Amino acid sequence: KTDSISSYRSVVLPGLINIATFIPDLAVHGSTDFETVSKASIASGFSMIRVMPIGVESSLTDARALVVAQSNTQEGAYCDYNFSVAATATNSQQLSQVTMKVGSLFIPFHNLSGNINKVAAVTEHFKVWPAFKPIVTDARTTDLASILLLASLHTRPVHITSVTTKDDISLIALSKEKGLNVTCDVSVYSLFLSQLDYPECSSLPSKEDQEALWENLGIIDCFSVGSLPSQLSHDLGQDLVPGIGIEDTIPLLFTAVNAGRLTLEDIVLRLHINPKAIFELHDQPDTSIEVEIDRQYTRKESVIWSPFVGKKLTGTVLRVTLKGQTACLDGHVLATGTAGSDMSASGAGKFERHPGVVPASPLIT
Amino acid sequence: KTDSISSYRSVVLPGLINIATFIPDLAVHGSTDFETVSKASIASGFSMIRVMPIGVESSLTDARALVVAQSNTQEGAYCDYNFSVAATATNSQQLSQVTMKVGSLFIPFHNLSGNINKVAAVTEHFKVWPAFKPIVTDARTTDLASILLLASLHTRPVHITSVTTKDDISLIALSKEKGLNVTCDVSVYSLFLSQLDYPECSSLPSKEDQEALWENLGIIDCFSVGSLPSQLSHDLGQDLVPGIGIEDTIPLLFTAVNAGRLTLEDIVLRLHINPKAIFELHDQPDTSIEVEIDRQYTRKESVIWSPFVGKKLTGTVLRVTLKGQTACLDGHVLATGTAGSDMSASGAGKFERHPGVVPASPLIT
Ligand SMILES: [Zn+2]
Ligand SMILES: [Zn+2]
Ligand SMILES: [Zn+2]
Ligand SMILES: [Zn+2]
Ligand SMILES: [Zn+2]
Ligand SMILES: [Zn+2]
Ligand SMILES: [Zn+2]
Ligand SMILES: [Zn+2]
Repeated sequence: KTDSISSYRSVVLPGLINIATFIPDLAVHGSTDFETVSKASIASGFSMIRVMPIGVESSLTDARALVVAQSNTQEGAYCDYNFSVAATATNSQQLSQVTMKVGSLFIPFHNLSGNINKVAAVTEHFKVWPAFKPIVTDARTTDLASILLLASLHTRPVHITSVTTKDDISLIALSKEKGLNVTCDVSVYSLFLSQLDYPECSSLPSKEDQEALWENLGIIDCFSVGSLPSQLSHDLGQDLVPGIGIEDTIPLLFTAVNAGRLTLEDIVLRLHINPKAIFELHDQPDTSIEVEIDRQYTRKESVIWSPFVGKKLTGTVLRVTLKGQTACLDGHVLATGTAGSDMSASGAGKFERHPGVVPASPLIT
Repeated sequence: KTDSISSYRSVVLPGLINIATFIPDLAVHGSTDFETVSKASIASGFSMIRVMPIGVESSLTDARALVVAQSNTQEGAYCDYNFSVAATATNSQQLSQVTMKVGSLFIPFHNLSGNINKVAAVTEHFKVWPAFKPIVTDARTTDLASILLLASLHTRPVHITSVTTKDDISLIALSKEKGLNVTCDVSVYSLFLSQLDYPECSSLPSKEDQEALWENLGIIDCFSVGSLPSQLSHDLGQDLVPGIGIEDTIPLLFTAVNAGRLTLEDIVLRLHINPKAIFELHDQPDTSIEVEIDRQYTRKESVIWSPFVGKKLTGTVLRVTLKGQTACLDGHVLATGTAGSDMSASGAGKFERHPGVVPASPLIT
């Protein structure tokens, strides 16, 4: 690569936040998956990652697993991070020991292990989990309606992650209209890939569902990476490696900007402003990314598998500045993996506003 | 039997209403099940029955089935009655043709056929079904929470029938506390039989669930017969005959009155006043029942199977007066099956109050 790109437009944005970051061997002792994912994240413009508490074969359902996940960050942490814990049918009391060490509670309904299907068990978590810490769930259809009722009855906000269907986004839209305190995110892959492209991946939206997601963009509070890219790679018979999908985020979204389907504000709102507000994340000082926004290129193969190799995309991360240091320049990670801090205990009134973050007209360099 | 019972106390109550009346061959052409059930009902003190729209092999899911059920009432109708229709995943538009001919919409979740498990399908019914006609459901656990949310989002009252568990009654209690417009009934059998008595019948409450029902008596708006007695007889290997459980209602409830567990007011509230208010039923003029309340007897075998044969019970229906005529005297049905009318179109503001119906001190004869 060369650095002769000064004739293209670029914009400076605040560091992006991935609110659903999938780490396959999350709580496996000695795993370097966290390091790999945090490195892929910073290189892709994410200065903060909220770690999903469910890995492939390990989950953060108790204090012991959390200690393992925390210790794995010693291998290298290229961006700030934030852990959550996952609810089980029986661990509501146990989790009260770790609330101050994590950013949120995740109530899983669509994972292979540890699902909750009893209203009473979910109710216990709503009773015990502190009111100032967010609750996140991947509930769908009836489970989604059920958890929205419980959140409403317990006067608790709830965030729905990786919404994929027309029915679910419609229910969330109606709930918001009626004043329920609910927010949601959609995996970026869901906006650009459907079961029409990959019939073998039932986790992708149908084409009709995908259209409903775009039509309800105003209902979508955040974009996320989530585990969907990893699920797709698995369903296509690929080896599951850490970090799938992260690198595709900026190119996909800026390609949509170029096509007039999204605005810069849409992106900053859903990958920085709303994630910060919903999860009460501390602002990262002197942290920004520079993105080249109008040069089209053909996606080349990289270390991590991507379904977009060979596609024409727009949007390149030129520079990532983390806490005043250039962490990444023109695709090269300059940082050494020591800059990332555990921000799990952040929040609860500490977050600040930064009104001018989305330039009215993008900064042109 | 002799009529020399004048030395015992009796009370006069308004005609009872069974809001969940199970008719096995509901929509089978030429079936006499309706006649049999209406006769058992009047003999047991029920002057009005709301017919459940789900039978054993037939359900009221369209206009055609409703016509069959209506025509079966020509065989004999000993009490007033009220039909409902059952929702399916696809019949919301179709049912709009029959709304004026039925008393309510039933959304089934726990029947062998015709269950709905899609939030979107239920939502369609909430959109199409007229706001002045009640909606009833047998949803449990997550389905219950889901339908409570939908009812709340669509600002519609909903009635939950045959609540059986601690979890469900607790969720309904919390929902009522938070102002949701929800009512419920409990099958009388659930109050007096548990899985401790009949482990082979999983439809009965556990002992713990049953205790929770009694503790939440204030949450229970209505008592009902429901299909639970028929389910129990089936699970015990009995032939399924129409009318099981109806005759046991008064004896079970008055035995509880005698034991100090219920008051007369509890019964009138839940078998007459609340059913009328919730389902907007017209008052039946000159209709009352006389119940002998303090003579204990041993339950004898009757035409219809009962698990209480041989048990010591209190409470005997002495006389039933329907629309000014003695329909039943001392266990003998005097009526000929022509007095019952279709009250399905009743309601919508027509019901009246009758403040003095529960005598401060029971009338002693
Ligand atoms: Zn370079
Ligand atoms: Zn697999
Ligand atoms: Zn910011
Ligand atoms: Zn700050
Ligand atoms: Zn006699
Ligand atoms: Zn069976
Ligand atoms: Zn009355
Ligand atoms: Zn009247």
